[in-house]
Amino acid sequence: MDNKEKALKMHEKWNGKLEILSKAKVNNAEDLAIAYTPGVAEPCKEINKNIENVYKYTMKSNTVAVITDGTAVLGLGDIGPEAALPVMEGKCVLFKEFAGINAIPICLNTKDTEEIINTIKIISPAFGGINLEDISAPRCFEIENRLKEELNIPVFHDDQHGTAIIVLAAIINSLKIVKKEKKDLKVVINGAGSAGIAITKLLKDFKIENIILCDRDGILKKEEKNSNWAHDEIAKSINPENIKGGLKEALMGADIFIGVSAPNILKEEMIKSMNKNPIIFALANPIPEIMPDIAKKSGARIVGTGRSDFPNQINNVLAFPGIFKGALISRKQITQEMKIKAAFAIASMIKEEDLNEDNILPKAFDEGISEKVAKSII
Amino acid sequence: MDNKEKALKMHEKWNGKLEILSKAKVNNAEDLAIAYTPGVAEPCKEINKNIENVYKYTMKSNTVAVITDGTAVLGLGDIGPEAALPVMEGKCVLFKEFAGINAIPICLNTKDTEEIINTIKIISPAFGGINLEDISAPRCFEIENRLKEELNIPVFHDDQHGTAIIVLAAIINSLKIVKKEKKDLKVVINGAGSAGIAITKLLKDFKIENIILCDRDGILKKEEKNSNWAHDEIAKSINPENIKGGLKEALMGADIFIGVSAPNILKEEMIKSMNKNPIIFALANPIPEIMPDIAKKSGARIVGTGRSDFPNQINNVLAFPGIFKGALISRKQITQEMKIKAAFAIASMIKEEDLNEDNILPKAFDEGISEKVAKSII
Repeated sequence: MDNKEKALKMHEKWNGKLEILSKAKVNNAEDLAIAYTPGVAEPCKEINKNIENVYKYTMKSNTVAVITDGTAVLGLGDIGPEAALPVMEGKCVLFKEFAGINAIPICLNTKDTEEIINTIKIISPAFGGINLEDISAPRCFEIENRLKEELNIPVFHDDQHGTAIIVLAAIINSLKIVKKEKKDLKVVINGAGSAGIAITKLLKDFKIENIILCDRDGILKKEEKNSNWAHDEIAKSINPENIKGGLKEALMGADIFIGVSAPNILKEEMIKSMNKNPIIFALANPIPEIMPDIAKKSGARIVGTGRSDFPNQINNVLAFPGIFKGALISRKQITQEMKIKAAFAIASMIKEEDLNEDNILPKAFDEGISEKVAKSII
Repeated sequence: MDNKEKALKMHEKWNGKLEILSKAKVNNAEDLAIAYTPGVAEPCKEINKNIENVYKYTMKSNTVAVITDGTAVLGLGDIGPEAALPVMEGKCVLFKEFAGINAIPICLNTKDTEEIINTIKIISPAFGGINLEDISAPRCFEIENRLKEELNIPVFHDDQHGTAIIVLAAIINSLKIVKKEKKDLKVVINGAGSAGIAITKLLKDFKIENIILCDRDGILKKEEKNSNWAHDEIAKSINPENIKGGLKEALMGADIFIGVSAPNILKEEMIKSMNKNPIIFALANPIPEIMPDIAKKSGARIVGTGRSDFPNQINNVLAFPGIFKGALISRKQITQEMKIKAAFAIASMIKEEDLNEDNILPKAFDEGISEKVAKSII
């Protein structure tokens, strides 16, 4: 039985990967009178008196809603809210296993931006945080920005910021190996979806000045229309040398390639045209932009992918559990500054003596990551 | 420490009565590759091919959303969605403990009927059933009716139908004791909110012809306006003798009093004016319409309340766990016929030899109730 068959079999056996249990034991009428009526009226009254008490007496303090509309799921695309549910359940499993957070999947039967925003606002009272998941760009930007303004609980689109934080952590440690300064870097990001744009913004705020962002149609254009408003907006503030053309032109003399795009897009000649000690993060999943052995043969000094079967896995699970752990305590929106701190916290998990080309990031199951990330942002 | 203090202390200690656990163990990268990416893509693809597969591979098959807007909570009234959360968590605890069903509380930050309907439709994909809870009348009728038409998962407003089913079960067994036929009964229901109206409808469908429904302003009027459209509608089809006045006038010669109203409203003289062997179900909680000892002294043959510290507790927990257990299997809306079958199933839990004035219904913790109810409606 291969892994695909096994995954299907196991999902049928689980018939839902989550189980909701009661912390309150109810074995007799006395128990019921405490956990339910009439005793339950007491915490209700306390919350009614002071809404802050909802954090003291309910699940809100440690519960995150994992919300999708099913439009940008894994490598599968727009498969709808029902088909997205196994991924959302999986994400909730990770919340529990890596940070002890209770997470609940909510799959939305609408793709309308305003309706999504409104629905999330309406269902927010029971939740301490909102994890947006697999919502396609550029709608995801508007949805996240509006919710951050209009809700008083932390909102985080993991496809954007989780990825950006781990990429930054990988860059921080890679620079120690190749001995380059961030101010001298030229970084090319291929794929201007939710992750690509969020990585661009975070690297800019980290003070990397020379960033070029490419999409299917080549380097984003400063003066002409690109394929959506989010591309037009980001294009204005990057690519200071105003380089034109495609990925090939972008990569000449570049120090870092970051792919959040499609399989096998990065060619050997492109790596050969890069600056000394090129760093390649080929994150398309499961088939990366270039296979690590080919990248290495073409001169790449450091190679990372999204996969667990190669060195240097760039894995969101290093970030989002700790991010939410911290955010549920601080109850503040997650800022760019906090994301940079989180990236440093993750990078610092690798001790100097252990740092090398094939070991730039901690592994998902290393101990203490979410605690460290949480502390860094509180 | 009294029970109120204890309830508050325990709610603070629990800090949320629910815990979300993973059935999928993820202890290493191989586990992750099955429960999450890349393995999780397989069930996603199967559901995308055939949406029915969502019942095979996800939590939908055994998960109910417990949804409120916080407008009619317990005896507390309109306390808002946050303050309602302890009750919703408690309800979810009962779903798990009494039927093994996973239930998730959703508290809505809106009171607008259309917005509630729309929100529930939008968030429905992950859920196998919707339990509406503590939504005030008459909005609850429109919300439930519309959702039953517009959603393809079972929708059940427990405050209405759970109560109605248990009251009917109590009547079925009480009639055996007092040896009366349903066709001869005169039943007075006091309180024309969600429960009162649902009880009226179910007793009518059970073929009790002579039902009088009273509210704060007395017996509902057939020809004049009552306080809302739901009162006007139900008034037309009941009270065949067209009796006018208040509770006092209604109860003269009546066989059964059902109170879903307010404390201490039923007076001794009223019971004395009833037919032989009066049956009193005084369900206001925690203080009933009349205390059982006073009702008995006034001539009541059988008395039931909502409380666990008196005989004959009329408790929704006897019905809704089994109702949903059955509905999640049959995946059909719950009809009046099914509710009557459920009432008979509950009544049948008391063996003939055990049936007496103080033992007309099973207790919440008796074994096998939810299985029996589920079977009765499938």
